[in-house]
Amino acid sequence: MYVISERINGMFKAVKKAIAEKDAKAIQEMAKKQVELGSDALDLNVGTAAEDPAAAMVWLVETVQEVTDKTLCLDNPKLEVLKAGAEACKNDILINSTTAKDPALGKFMAFAAEKEASIIGLTLDEKGVPNTAEHRVEIAAKIITAAMEHGIPMDKLYIDPITLPVNVAQDQPQKMLKAIEQFTMLSDPAPHIVIGLSNLSQRCKEISLLNSTFLAMCIGAGLDAAILDPHDEQLMNTMITAEVLMNQAIYSDDYLKAYKA
Amino acid sequence: MYVISERINGMFKAVKKAIAEKDAKAIQEMAKKQVELGSDALDLNVGTAAEDPAAAMVWLVETVQEVTDKTLCLDNPKLEVLKAGAEACKNDILINSTTAKDPALGKFMAFAAEKEASIIGLTLDEKGVPNTAEHRVEIAAKIITAAMEHGIPMDKLYIDPITLPVNVAQDQPQKMLKAIEQFTMLSDPAPHIVIGLSNLSQRCKEISLLNSTFLAMCIGAGLDAAILDPHDEQLMNTMITAEVLMNQAIYSDDYLKAYKA
Repeated sequence: MYVISERINGMFKAVKKAIAEKDAKAIQEMAKKQVELGSDALDLNVGTAAEDPAAAMVWLVETVQEVTDKTLCLDNPKLEVLKAGAEACKNDILINSTTAKDPALGKFMAFAAEKEASIIGLTLDEKGVPNTAEHRVEIAAKIITAAMEHGIPMDKLYIDPITLPVNVAQDQPQKMLKAIEQFTMLSDPAPHIVIGLSNLSQRCKEISLLNSTFLAMCIGAGLDAAILDPHDEQLMNTMITAEVLMNQAIYSDDYLKAYKA
Repeated sequence: MYVISERINGMFKAVKKAIAEKDAKAIQEMAKKQVELGSDALDLNVGTAAEDPAAAMVWLVETVQEVTDKTLCLDNPKLEVLKAGAEACKNDILINSTTAKDPALGKFMAFAAEKEASIIGLTLDEKGVPNTAEHRVEIAAKIITAAMEHGIPMDKLYIDPITLPVNVAQDQPQKMLKAIEQFTMLSDPAPHIVIGLSNLSQRCKEISLLNSTFLAMCIGAGLDAAILDPHDEQLMNTMITAEVLMNQAIYSDDYLKAYKA
């Protein structure tokens, strides 16, 4: 599993404050901790409050890459913010994200190709978030085609079936599972499949249990990446266990320790 | 999910002792506790040490059905032991189990039909436990055909893809997931799908984590029954959560409490 840590996000109070005050040390401590907890990439999101999102993104990129060479996942809906962040970025880049709307899809793919960046494609088009697995697969196929047209190899493409909160859309998780399973068969090699996990349990009570259980189900269906909170130990232990059960990590009695070492 | 509690089994010391000493109260306390924890059926297994397995099975059946009207899951490889147990049983019966070996399969199915019992069919034939998902599906199809020939409706048939310990057969869990998914498409209506979960983590260290994670993955693939230990709270909470995520139980913030009530 490819773990993208979600915790450097201006929606969180401490991060918002650190961005506003340009407190590099605070951000760098967060980044180091998240890498230590097993993150392969760090999502950088300036939040909605930043006065100049592009400048804030550049500062975040420069601040974080001082302490880690992990992939930076530039998270913003606006292409100009992503471009500013990418310009400043020396680490590998994962663009989070493009939708399948025209003409945005082509523009984002061209940008990813130019930067040799990886990119997340949301199965979301002009009609919004699909209600069915089939429609998600249809949109995924459109994203894959666009990536191929721009010469982006499948190992740089991450398809995201879009996680909705279970407390408002309880019929969606099982449709996501079906979509994930079908994404694995869309091309050979298949693209990566990623979810933004925490959205599942927004405003729910059993956050860790819901996230852990769904992550296990998704990995069983073929998921190979997730944007998540690596501070959640139950979640990380479940993820490691699911990988062992999928024969992607070697079993030993101390497989948890072995993974974390 | 249909929960079959595995804890009245002569392989456990306390149960073995209670059977040997005909300590009805001890067995009945176990049975009541397992029902309280959410079991829909109680597996009754006299173990291998019982001198007269048929007599021990009859005693277990009579003892347990005094305190519960839940389905009794008669667990023994020998038809004569199952027949003795069934003869004494006033509750609904689930036969655990038949293999797909000839001529046993036909005999067990005839017995289930005669008793109007449910029956578990293991995907195991003359060649042993299959190494692939495809072979499991092939054997499942044979079992379904045999059930149909004997007039056993699909809602009384439970297909078991056979759980192997992850510490000795790490390639098998993902093959089981594939098999489970394919079992759901073998007939319309589909048979139930059951696993004996605990075998997965035999002699492992992270028993609860392995069992919980795999159960979630299996439910995502289509599993609707399991033989498990209802005393494992993490496992039961994961199971309930997986059901909520599959939209089979209604979400509320207190869905765990609601389920247990």
